[in-house]
Amino acid sequence: MVRVALSQCIKILIFFTLYLFVSSVDARIRRYKWEVKYEYKSPDCYKKLVITVNGKTPGPTILARENDTIIVELKNSLLTENVAIHWHGIRQIETPWFDGTEGVTQCPILPGDTFIYEFVVDRPGTYLYHAHYGMQREAGLYGSIRVLLGDGKTEPFPYDHDRSIILNDWYHKTTFEQATGLSSLDFDWVGEPQSILIQGKGRFNCSSPGIDAGLCNATPSECSPYVLTVIPGKTYRLRIASLTSLSALSFEIEGHNMTVVEADGHYVQPFVINNLFIYSGETYSVLINADQDPSRNYWASAKVVSRQNTTPNGLAIFNYYPNHPRRYPPTVPPRGPAWNDTAPRMSQSLAIKARQGSISPPPPLSDRVFVFLNTQNKVNGYVRWSVNNVSFNLPHTPYLISLKENLTHLFQQSLPPTGYDFVNYDIYREQDGNGTTSDSIYRLDFNTTVDIILQNARQLLQNRSETHPWHLHGHDFWVLGYGDGKFDMFNDPKKYNLVNPILKNTVPVHPYGWTALRFRADNPGVWAFHCHIEAHFYMGMGVVFEEGIEKVGRLPTSIMGCGDTKGWSQRP
Amino acid sequence: MVRVALSQCIKILIFFTLYLFVSSVDARIRRYKWEVKYEYKSPDCYKKLVITVNGKTPGPTILARENDTIIVELKNSLLTENVAIHWHGIRQIETPWFDGTEGVTQCPILPGDTFIYEFVVDRPGTYLYHAHYGMQREAGLYGSIRVLLGDGKTEPFPYDHDRSIILNDWYHKTTFEQATGLSSLDFDWVGEPQSILIQGKGRFNCSSPGIDAGLCNATPSECSPYVLTVIPGKTYRLRIASLTSLSALSFEIEGHNMTVVEADGHYVQPFVINNLFIYSGETYSVLINADQDPSRNYWASAKVVSRQNTTPNGLAIFNYYPNHPRRYPPTVPPRGPAWNDTAPRMSQSLAIKARQGSISPPPPLSDRVFVFLNTQNKVNGYVRWSVNNVSFNLPHTPYLISLKENLTHLFQQSLPPTGYDFVNYDIYREQDGNGTTSDSIYRLDFNTTVDIILQNARQLLQNRSETHPWHLHGHDFWVLGYGDGKFDMFNDPKKYNLVNPILKNTVPVHPYGWTALRFRADNPGVWAFHCHIEAHFYMGMGVVFEEGIEKVGRLPTSIMGCGDTKGWSQRP
Repeated sequence: MVRVALSQCIKILIFFTLYLFVSSVDARIRRYKWEVKYEYKSPDCYKKLVITVNGKTPGPTILARENDTIIVELKNSLLTENVAIHWHGIRQIETPWFDGTEGVTQCPILPGDTFIYEFVVDRPGTYLYHAHYGMQREAGLYGSIRVLLGDGKTEPFPYDHDRSIILNDWYHKTTFEQATGLSSLDFDWVGEPQSILIQGKGRFNCSSPGIDAGLCNATPSECSPYVLTVIPGKTYRLRIASLTSLSALSFEIEGHNMTVVEADGHYVQPFVINNLFIYSGETYSVLINADQDPSRNYWASAKVVSRQNTTPNGLAIFNYYPNHPRRYPPTVPPRGPAWNDTAPRMSQSLAIKARQGSISPPPPLSDRVFVFLNTQNKVNGYVRWSVNNVSFNLPHTPYLISLKENLTHLFQQSLPPTGYDFVNYDIYREQDGNGTTSDSIYRLDFNTTVDIILQNARQLLQNRSETHPWHLHGHDFWVLGYGDGKFDMFNDPKKYNLVNPILKNTVPVHPYGWTALRFRADNPGVWAFHCHIEAHFYMGMGVVFEEGIEKVGRLPTSIMGCGDTKGWSQRP
Repeated sequence: MVRVALSQCIKILIFFTLYLFVSSVDARIRRYKWEVKYEYKSPDCYKKLVITVNGKTPGPTILARENDTIIVELKNSLLTENVAIHWHGIRQIETPWFDGTEGVTQCPILPGDTFIYEFVVDRPGTYLYHAHYGMQREAGLYGSIRVLLGDGKTEPFPYDHDRSIILNDWYHKTTFEQATGLSSLDFDWVGEPQSILIQGKGRFNCSSPGIDAGLCNATPSECSPYVLTVIPGKTYRLRIASLTSLSALSFEIEGHNMTVVEADGHYVQPFVINNLFIYSGETYSVLINADQDPSRNYWASAKVVSRQNTTPNGLAIFNYYPNHPRRYPPTVPPRGPAWNDTAPRMSQSLAIKARQGSISPPPPLSDRVFVFLNTQNKVNGYVRWSVNNVSFNLPHTPYLISLKENLTHLFQQSLPPTGYDFVNYDIYREQDGNGTTSDSIYRLDFNTTVDIILQNARQLLQNRSETHPWHLHGHDFWVLGYGDGKFDMFNDPKKYNLVNPILKNTVPVHPYGWTALRFRADNPGVWAFHCHIEAHFYMGMGVVFEEGIEKVGRLPTSIMGCGDTKGWSQRP
C-alpha cells in the first residue's frame, strides 16, 4: 500500500511538473480543437437548430496574452454546409489568408474537412470571432477573444475582476429562410428579432399566439437569465460586445453607472455613462463598482434603439453575492432610452476619444478620400443595399487568391465609384433607387493614408435612415468625426479630431448623418469593409480593399479549392 | 407591306428548317441548364423551403431516346450548401464518375460552381434523378427521366398516351432538423410524414392543431390535387415512380385495373392488379384503359403500407375528358389495403417476371455470395442502421478517386463482413444491438457473378421488421427469389427463378423475409448499394462495391476538390 501511494505521488509530481512546463509553453501558443455542427438549443426557450462550437453557442472563449499565437483546428461537422470563421478585430498581420472571410480571403471549409487557422493576437483587448459565410453568424456561430496584457504589464485603470458578455438578437426562422426571403423578387423580410440574448441567454414568451408548445419550453436552464455575480465593494471590468444581426442596442445595469475605458481593443479616455449604446461588431470595456445596496440583485437590460422595434428588452441578473443568483430583482427592469432619440447616441459616439498617454495620433493628411453613400436600391427588381448605388457581390474565387495569382479575369476590373453626386443628391428625399451590382474592388497604394466618409441617407422603401455599423477587416481606423446631415467636404474636415481620435474597427453612421475615418493602408492583403448587419452585407452593403498584394507571402493551399482554384493537378 | 410579310415568311421558313435540323441533332445530345436553389413552395399547402431545379419541384423531366447523350450543366445556387445529383437507374457505363453519389463517385458541388454531368442513356425505360448528398432528396430535389425506344422501334404493348408521376412523402421539418435528430445521442426521429405527394402535389389539413395559419394556406394551386386527364376509350401507359423518404406505398385508381408492363426499365410479363405496391426507388409502367363511366372523375390514391402510419392517403384526380379537371369524384376515395398485410405485397413481388421474348437469363451459378443481414444497432450510444451489424460511414474523399489513385489509407482496408452467424442469430428476437461503424468496402473480381441475400430481421427498438428497398448503382440485378423467415442457404437456392427473373435496380426485402439477387460485376467503377429510405442510408444502411477500377478511364478533375483531393498544386 505504501509503495503504491508513493508511486502515485511520484506520478502526481511528474504530472504537475509537466503541467507547469506546458503552461509556460501555452503562454506562447494556444491550441484549440473545435468541432462545428448543428444542434438543438433553446437560447430564448424556443427550441431550434443552431450552429455550435464544441456543443456551445456562444462558442468557447479564446483567452490569450498579447503576442500569443492562436491555433484553431476547425472541424466542419455540418452535414452539407461549408463554413468559415472570421477573427473580428485581429489584424492578421502577415497572415491575411487567415482572416476567415469567405470569398475574400479563403474558400469555404467543406463538411468533413479540418481547417487550421493560425495567427498572432498582437495587441491586448476585447475581440470576437464569428462565421463569415452566408448568414451563418445568425445561426449561433460566434464567441469572444480576450487578449490580456503581456506578463508584468498593468492596465492603466484598476479593477478587481474581468468578465465578458456578448449581446445578440435572435430569430426563430432559419438563416436559409431569411436568406431566401431577402434574395427573392418577391422580397420577404423576416422582421424584427424575437429576442435579445445576453451571453447566449434570452427569454421568449412561450404563450405567444401561434407558438408550437412542443418547441417552446420556459423551464430549461438554457433560457434562464444570464447571471453576472459580483462581490460587494469590488470593481469589475465588464467587456461588452455586440454581434446582433440587426439591432442597435442600449445596455445598462440598474442603479450602476459605467465608466468606459476600452473600445475595440483601444484605451478610451474614461467617461461615465448610465447606458452604453453599442452597435453590431463593437466591443467595449466598462468599469462597474459593485457599490449599491448588497441585499438585493439588479437588472441588466439590453434594449433595441434606432428601430421602432417589437423585441422585448433582453434581461440578465446582476447578482450581489451572497444573494441567490436566480433571485429576481424586486424592481421593474429599466425601460431604457427612447428608440428614436438619436441625439444621445451621437453624443456618446463623440465622447469616445483615445486615452491620454495612449494616444496614437493619425497622419495629419490623407492621400485619398472615398465617400461612401449608404443607399438602398432596386437592381433588376431585387432589393439591395449598396455603396454609391453599387451593390456588392462576392466572387466564387476569393480575391486574395485571384489577386495574388493574377487571375484578374475573375472579377470586374473597373473601379467602383469613389463618391456620389454631392451637389445634387438629396439625402433626405426619395430617390429612384436604380442601382447596379458589381464585384469590383478598391486597390490602394501601399502605405498610403485613406479617408472614408460614410454618408447616410434615406433608405428606399421607407421614409427613414437606418444606423449602419461599418466594420473594417485587417485594420483599425481613427474616427475623425461624426456629423448630422450631408457631409460638407470643405468645412467638416476642418473640425476633424486629429488630436486624440479613438482607433476602432467598427463604427456607426447615424441616421441621416456622416462618419469620417482614416486608416493607413499598411497591411498587405485583401480586406472587407462592410455593414455589420448580417442581412445588409448579404444584400450587398460592403466593399473590398486591396493593398500591397505583392508583399503577401506564399498563400497556404488550405485556403484554396473553390471557384477557379478547384482542381487537382498533381497527386498530393 | 407585302415585302415585309414575305421577309417574315422567309424568316419563319428558315426558323422552321433550323428547328427540324436542331431537333434531329437533339435526338443525339440533349442539353439541360439547371439551377438548383432554395425557394418557398407549398406542395401540400404548407409553405416551406424546398430545393428546386429551375424553380420547380419535382424538377424538369429529362425526355430522351435510347443512346442519347444527356448533358446537364448544374449550377449550385444554394447559399452555403453543396450538392450532387444521382441519375437513378442509369448504369453510367464508361462514366462511373457521373453517377452523382457524393463520397462514392464525386466530391460535392460547391455553391457558385457549375458542374457538368454527361452520360448516355443506353436503354429505354423509366428512370429518376435526385440529390445524393446529405438528406437533400427529401428537400425536393428530384425528377423523372423517360427514355423512349430508338426511332422505328415499337414497344411490345400498345398504348395511346404516355404519362409519368412520381410518388413521394413529405415532411414539414427541414432536412437539417431531421438529420440532427437522427445523429444525436438523444435520438430524435421526425416521425411519420405529413403528406403523400403525387407528382409534387398533396394536401395537408391546415386546420390541424398547432399549425401556423401564416404558413398553411389551402387555396394556392400548388396544393390542389394533381390531375391526370384521360380521353374515354384510350389506353394509357402510366409510369409510376416512388421517391419516398420512408414510406412503402400502395397506389390505385378507383374502378380501374392496371396491367404491369415495365419495372425499373425492363419489360414485365404482363399481369393485372387492382393496386400497385411500390417502394422508394422503384419505377413501374402500367397500362390503364379509360373504359369506365366517362361522365365523372375518379380518385387516384396512394396509401402508406408496411407501417402503422398516421399520414392521410395522397389523392389525385383521374379526370375523364371533358369533365372539369377540378371536379371531385362523387365517391369516397379508396381506402387501400391494410397496412400490416404483408402477404399481398410478397405475392406481388413474386409476380414480377421478365416478359416472354425479352428475357435476359442470369448466369446459372454465382462466383460469390454475400448475406446482408439488415440490422438496427447502437454504436457508442447512437442509433444506426447496419448490414451484418456494421454501419456504413461515407469517407470525405470519394472512393472512386482514392481507389483509382491508390490512396488506400483514406478508408479502412479490412473486409466488411460477408455474412452473419446464420446458425445462432434469431431474426425474430431482440438482440443486444451492439454494432460498429466502418467505411470499408467490398472489392469484387471483375466480370464475376455475385449473389446477395438480403435478410431482414427484427429491428432494435421495436418488435417489428421494416420493409427496406435496396437500390444498386451502376447495375441491374436479377431478382432470383423472395421468401419469409430466415434464408435457408441449402434449400432456398434450389427454388431460385433462373428462367425468367426480372432485372431491377431496386427491390424490397419484406418484414422478417429475405430477397435474393444476382448481378454481374461488369461495370468498372465504384458503386453504392443501399437502403433507399433516406434516413436509413444516412444512418449507415449501405455498402459499396468496387469492380474493375483498373479499367476506369482518366477521372475528370471536376469530380475532385474535397478530402485528400483538396489543394491546388499548379496554376490552372
